Amino acid sequence: VVAAAELRDDDRVAFIAGIGAPGVLVEKLPRVDEAVTALHILEAHLGSRFTHLCPAEAGGLNALTPIGPAAATGLPIVDADGMGRAFPSLELVTPTLDGGVCTPMGFADEHGNTMLIDTPTNLWAEDFARAATVASGGIAMLALYPMTGRQAKDWLVHGALSLAQRLGQAVRRGSSTGELPLDEIFAETGGHRLFHGTVVDVDRRNERGWTMGTVVVSGTGRHGGQSMEIDFQNENLVARVDDSIVATTPDLIMVLGLDTAEPIPAEDVRYGQRVTVVGLPCDPQWRTPAGLALTGPRRFGYDVDFRPIEA
Amino acid sequence: VVAAAELRDDDRVAFIAGIGAPGVLVEKLPRVDEAVTALHILEAHLGSRFTHLCPAEAGGLNALTPIGPAAATGLPIVDADGMGRAFPSLELVTPTLDGGVCTPMGFADEHGNTMLIDTPTNLWAEDFARAATVASGGIAMLALYPMTGRQAKDWLVHGALSLAQRLGQAVRRGSSTGELPLDEIFAETGGHRLFHGTVVDVDRRNERGWTMGTVVVSGTGRHGGQSMEIDFQNENLVARVDDSIVATTPDLIMVLGLDTAEPIPAEDVRYGQRVTVVGLPCDPQWRTPAGLALTGPRRFGYDVDFRPIEA
Repeated sequence: VVAAAELRDDDRVAFIAGIGAPGVLVEKLPRVDEAVTALHILEAHLGSRFTHLCPAEAGGLNALTPIGPAAATGLPIVDADGMGRAFPSLELVTPTLDGGVCTPMGFADEHGNTMLIDTPTNLWAEDFARAATVASGGIAMLALYPMTGRQAKDWLVHGALSLAQRLGQAVRRGSSTGELPLDEIFAETGGHRLFHGTVVDVDRRNERGWTMGTVVVSGTGRHGGQSMEIDFQNENLVARVDDSIVATTPDLIMVLGLDTAEPIPAEDVRYGQRVTVVGLPCDPQWRTPAGLALTGPRRFGYDVDFRPIEA
Repeated sequence: VVAAAELRDDDRVAFIAGIGAPGVLVEKLPRVDEAVTALHILEAHLGSRFTHLCPAEAGGLNALTPIGPAAATGLPIVDADGMGRAFPSLELVTPTLDGGVCTPMGFADEHGNTMLIDTPTNLWAEDFARAATVASGGIAMLALYPMTGRQAKDWLVHGALSLAQRLGQAVRRGSSTGELPLDEIFAETGGHRLFHGTVVDVDRRNERGWTMGTVVVSGTGRHGGQSMEIDFQNENLVARVDDSIVATTPDLIMVLGLDTAEPIPAEDVRYGQRVTVVGLPCDPQWRTPAGLALTGPRRFGYDVDFRPIEA
């Protein structure tokens, strides 16, 4: 793992990421082979080799997706990502804000199908990769956003893997005592607690290549008598308490389990879980007008303005 | 236009075809550019140039699709096709019966999106190209089934373009007198009349990348009191008279207009048209067990055996 600041300007970096519905991943485990195939297809098309692999997003499984391919190819991983969180769509990365181009993109699935996709916009890249993923059965592997080392340094959110490691260490220490290490998480991230209670309803479906739905949490303690609804599209998008919005994308909305002292992704939320919902401020790039145009609540169909979670 | 028999064994032949719903083509006219782009993507991937282009199917617009790209590239067209008719799915070609491989395939659309698709089966190639076509808006252009001249000679249905030209000349002579040249058509093709009457209902929708539906024809003359239903998926698949099947794929079911003395494709059938429905025997390759397994009525979800149209 290499710090982004250590990249040389002429290094060659690509994101390695899975695409699809996390709810399908519960049944179909991803393999390293497909990601390596996607990488090789992209390299063959470009006629050059990459020097570094990088996670596209810091959240969910994709924070870890490059590790297997890095081991298989011997390439180092950059301690960075393109979101500082996770988003459910390929164009929602910081390189898009700076003119970075998603394609050419390598695609490979478990059946041996491969594609080299080239599109004039990053949103078209998302549309084609998503359609292919649905045709493929819900999950596929991608190599995308070919960048120089200079571009990666300038565009990406630095330190994603080391932050994840520090948070993970705190969570692991907490797991041993059965306590969520909220103070340590908030000290690292600037977040705060939004709600706590018990999951009383989950509406979840794998639809058009995503895991979509809503979680309802019935408040306990000082939230007694209140109810929180969280809408998700792979990732949590908007949290409402009694129909009043308390947090929206691009800020992070995380559901943490009180029984396991671990985070619970949208595909694993279950009836009866006792949870604390926390909000973390997103990377500053997302709070610019261009960042909010790309990832704010209106991008996902919510007719509300973004309000920072700490406001 | 070159006869298939004149190909040299080491010539390089590819199908050029549009994919999508003909009902969308009514609004989106295909351009030569996309087909040439699809061809160049395939050539760049293979690292070699083609010597001849060829229609994938003899029916519908795709009989003519290679003509523009042939003019633009200066390449000759082979007087042959891969169906001896039209089918609504990429794997339903005579090369599939003989081990021919659909991919690598070049894909290009009107928006500037391109893909190079490689799949382990011809059915997967169909699934991915169809998904991409839907993502693209319903129509795209393909270069596919790269073949040697030897393979093209052995696999394809010879004489598709010259047969189409002879039938077209007969139709044109008929149009000038307002008469359908049924005797000439039947002498060329071995077909016969199945039904005639007036179109009284059309159920048609553009769905999952195809134009799907059913036409109902109310019989006149000696068919008075009878009713024919024709199901189509881009092409006509099955014809029933009073719920008894009288013709099925892979034999050809054609609707000819008595007012215009011209054939009416599924996307143009309209209420009130006076029509004659004719059946033509398919190419003998389709009547083998392997041919019927690939293109018989069960392939399209009809639980009936194929019965030759002349039986």
